Amino acid sequence: MFEVAELGHRVSKEEYKQRVPDLRTQLLEVQFQLRQADFPVIVLISGVDGAGKGETVNLLNEWLDPRYVRTDAFDKPTEEERQRPPFWRYWRALPAKGHMALYVGSWYSGPLAKRVYGKTSAAELDEELSRINTFERELVDDGALVIKIWLHLSKKQQAKRLRKLEKNPETRWRVTKRDHQHLKLYDKFRPIAEHALRVTSTGEVPWVIVEGSDARYRGLTVGQIILEQLARRLARPPVEPVEAGEFRPITPPVSGEPVTLLNTLRLDLTVEPDAYKRELEEEQGRLNRLTRKALQKGVSSVMVMEGWDAAGKGGVIRRMVPAMDARHYHIIPVAAPTDEEHAHHYLWRFWRHISRAGHVTIYDRSWYGRVLVERVEGFATQDEWMRAYAELNDFEDQLVDHGIVLTKIWLHISKDEQIRRFKLREETPFKRHKITEEDYRNREKWDLYEQAVNDMVERTSTEYAPWVLVEANDKKYARLKVLRVFCDRLERALKKRK
Amino acid sequence: MFEVAELGHRVSKEEYKQRVPDLRTQLLEVQFQLRQADFPVIVLISGVDGAGKGETVNLLNEWLDPRYVRTDAFDKPTEEERQRPPFWRYWRALPAKGHMALYVGSWYSGPLAKRVYGKTSAAELDEELSRINTFERELVDDGALVIKIWLHLSKKQQAKRLRKLEKNPETRWRVTKRDHQHLKLYDKFRPIAEHALRVTSTGEVPWVIVEGSDARYRGLTVGQIILEQLARRLARPPVEPVEAGEFRPITPPVSGEPVTLLNTLRLDLTVEPDAYKRELEEEQGRLNRLTRKALQKGVSSVMVMEGWDAAGKGGVIRRMVPAMDARHYHIIPVAAPTDEEHAHHYLWRFWRHISRAGHVTIYDRSWYGRVLVERVEGFATQDEWMRAYAELNDFEDQLVDHGIVLTKIWLHISKDEQIRRFKLREETPFKRHKITEEDYRNREKWDLYEQAVNDMVERTSTEYAPWVLVEANDKKYARLKVLRVFCDRLERALKKRK
Repeated sequence: MFEVAELGHRVSKEEYKQRVPDLRTQLLEVQFQLRQADFPVIVLISGVDGAGKGETVNLLNEWLDPRYVRTDAFDKPTEEERQRPPFWRYWRALPAKGHMALYVGSWYSGPLAKRVYGKTSAAELDEELSRINTFERELVDDGALVIKIWLHLSKKQQAKRLRKLEKNPETRWRVTKRDHQHLKLYDKFRPIAEHALRVTSTGEVPWVIVEGSDARYRGLTVGQIILEQLARRLARPPVEPVEAGEFRPITPPVSGEPVTLLNTLRLDLTVEPDAYKRELEEEQGRLNRLTRKALQKGVSSVMVMEGWDAAGKGGVIRRMVPAMDARHYHIIPVAAPTDEEHAHHYLWRFWRHISRAGHVTIYDRSWYGRVLVERVEGFATQDEWMRAYAELNDFEDQLVDHGIVLTKIWLHISKDEQIRRFKLREETPFKRHKITEEDYRNREKWDLYEQAVNDMVERTSTEYAPWVLVEANDKKYARLKVLRVFCDRLERALKKRK
Repeated sequence: MFEVAELGHRVSKEEYKQRVPDLRTQLLEVQFQLRQADFPVIVLISGVDGAGKGETVNLLNEWLDPRYVRTDAFDKPTEEERQRPPFWRYWRALPAKGHMALYVGSWYSGPLAKRVYGKTSAAELDEELSRINTFERELVDDGALVIKIWLHLSKKQQAKRLRKLEKNPETRWRVTKRDHQHLKLYDKFRPIAEHALRVTSTGEVPWVIVEGSDARYRGLTVGQIILEQLARRLARPPVEPVEAGEFRPITPPVSGEPVTLLNTLRLDLTVEPDAYKRELEEEQGRLNRLTRKALQKGVSSVMVMEGWDAAGKGGVIRRMVPAMDARHYHIIPVAAPTDEEHAHHYLWRFWRHISRAGHVTIYDRSWYGRVLVERVEGFATQDEWMRAYAELNDFEDQLVDHGIVLTKIWLHISKDEQIRRFKLREETPFKRHKITEEDYRNREKWDLYEQAVNDMVERTSTEYAPWVLVEANDKKYARLKVLRVFCDRLERALKKRK
């Protein structure tokens, strides 16, 4: 695969001088068009050490309008980054629509280096690569243009280049001990890199390999690649949303009343007032002890609280809060996205709020809005929300993989119970503001929402992050159940950490 | 001052039980009103160790709707925080309009502790307190409600409380070595705290001292204070903007053509093409060496690039970029604020972008928009932009104080030169998009802008951050001058660090 980039491609000074002005003008032109476009551009400059990654990025910043290019070099993760799942830093850095980001030392550097140094097995590398594929596909599915450029050098060229850099006092500083180490490891590095490139060269995001030894050839080629890919993407007609059509649930409904998970819930479950008081205190005490221990051990937890309007989400949260330390939990009420959030991938705003180690984060509504309100109200196309099940599963997989204890709650009430509560709220002065016309509008779409909830539960109840369906016609019963489930999960996780 | 909080205030269980439900209902009510209001609420819970700061914050989270309360405990600064000026972490955490934040361990903790431990002198403490006063006044001027509560305990009570906490296995973990240390230092701490409270009890943001020994008294009192202050603030009629009236420049104009700094610039200064080429290369080489050294030493620099439309800001930036490493500079183009930025203090969005140690940040337009476009177009009231001069000076003082090398450039061209460039741009195909109708509209307000620029230069050219006025009718001359000034300042700063 790399042989083609060892042929000694060169560009003469004259040719370079002649071609650059035109290339620059065209790059500026597509960059200007990009600013009005509704997608971001992400350019990865990876490759062999000494192949000119830094120089290439600098050159691109010189050619492009640098005000609309963001350059990030991902080196060792900072303290804040280490406290979150590994991809947090990449999500944080994603450009908004109409912007371009250049990454040196991207999500490939870590996995490759670890494998070369023998810190991971071949299987572990493949696992990391498959996560990368998922990440990149999600970006592309959302409309992003991802360009991956690998700058290659043969071993001989690499050695020569290091010598040359070291000779010049102006560039000597750039050669580090690590570079020499990498040169020694070249023969080990090469097949691993080739494997990685092969596995991650997908139809949507193929790698492009550029020979790195001649600066003029390298610069012109990379500039040309970006120009062509961006121009092609800009010329692409907007994608027609797929006709809504028929959605097929995992379990096709039999004739008559469909049997769903929600339907099988026993909404008549209740708890006696005395038992409630006693057990509530017990569970709150447990929650207090467990969250304190979790803080000490750096075990984070995330709770997703979903449910029908008036199902009692706020009431559950208010029963948890007094048992915890306000300095270590965060409640994120999820409403419509801000315009900054809207200019990014829909998951970006949830990545933003991931808390540091040991903290509890409670989402009052969550990323599941994508497959609930956005589906039912048509804010997301069928393509988008169908795809979202896999995206949400992957997002949660990353949380759990990082050791975060994830609990997902659906508070379920009957349609009759809901109207009873609406009326009750309207009669209570300080609760009246909680009921708006929108609640009634949503209620009219009960059946559509119910279908969406069923699909959501079926498609996103995973081994590592199952949905907990809570019978909530009796508020007290629901509160106890949520507290107990949350504590149980946290307790189990803490035991494993001993 | 503290004697009044050592009288042994208590609230009986009966009274507490009777008063709490009403207080909670009212707190929820004002909190709901706050959500529609156009100001944020910041509550500081400070005080003596063991006086119940954490418990109070937890209680408030229980009483309020915790979904719209953000609690932050500022402990030791993280690595990311240490790389920025000390107040960065506080600016980052500021709540948006309509939201409430509770801070435990706020901007007072550090200065007080350092003084008690003898790490700072009395004069240094006063300097820090005066910075705090400025910060709080800026928040209040912007409409924020800042409530400062000091929880007090006598030495005897503090000792008793620690003993009690230690006896109970459930609470023992909360007593740290530092608590015992603080108890020993109580007699030293008390007069220092009293001094700090006195100096920072301003008319707009007075301290309230609450006796901390009885949990019921403490909780009720703090809840009551927040309720009253918030209700009063909500009831305040909107402030009428001051009539525009006459603005008085620092130097009143004499009769005839006013002599201003801008007028005295010699716009006929030029540079020969050969000299330009030679000197440009020299300065770029210097910039390269200096920014590399700055990265090694962790010296950050910030460049503010302001100037007339078509004065050549982008051209200057494009001459600097090739000399630097794209991984270590950031260009921030400043346009209209996003809605998230709009919901915060106008300086919040500039604090957001402060780079880490060793990096170069170039602002293409800047915080000076407040006293230029916002003044001229009426987006800021006269009150607001008049106040802004002091706020901007203070902001820059903090940057410089943190060791950041700040360079502020005004690119000046004549009115004739501007129209010449507009026409030229319209004739060049790939520059045509740079000219819009807005540029012509701005041009019609040339005199108003000129007045605003003169005022800005007069009022914000400080010892530590002077304006550099650049004669820019000759683009080449301007580019060289900017590069030279930037390098000179960076070089001086690096020499000092040796």
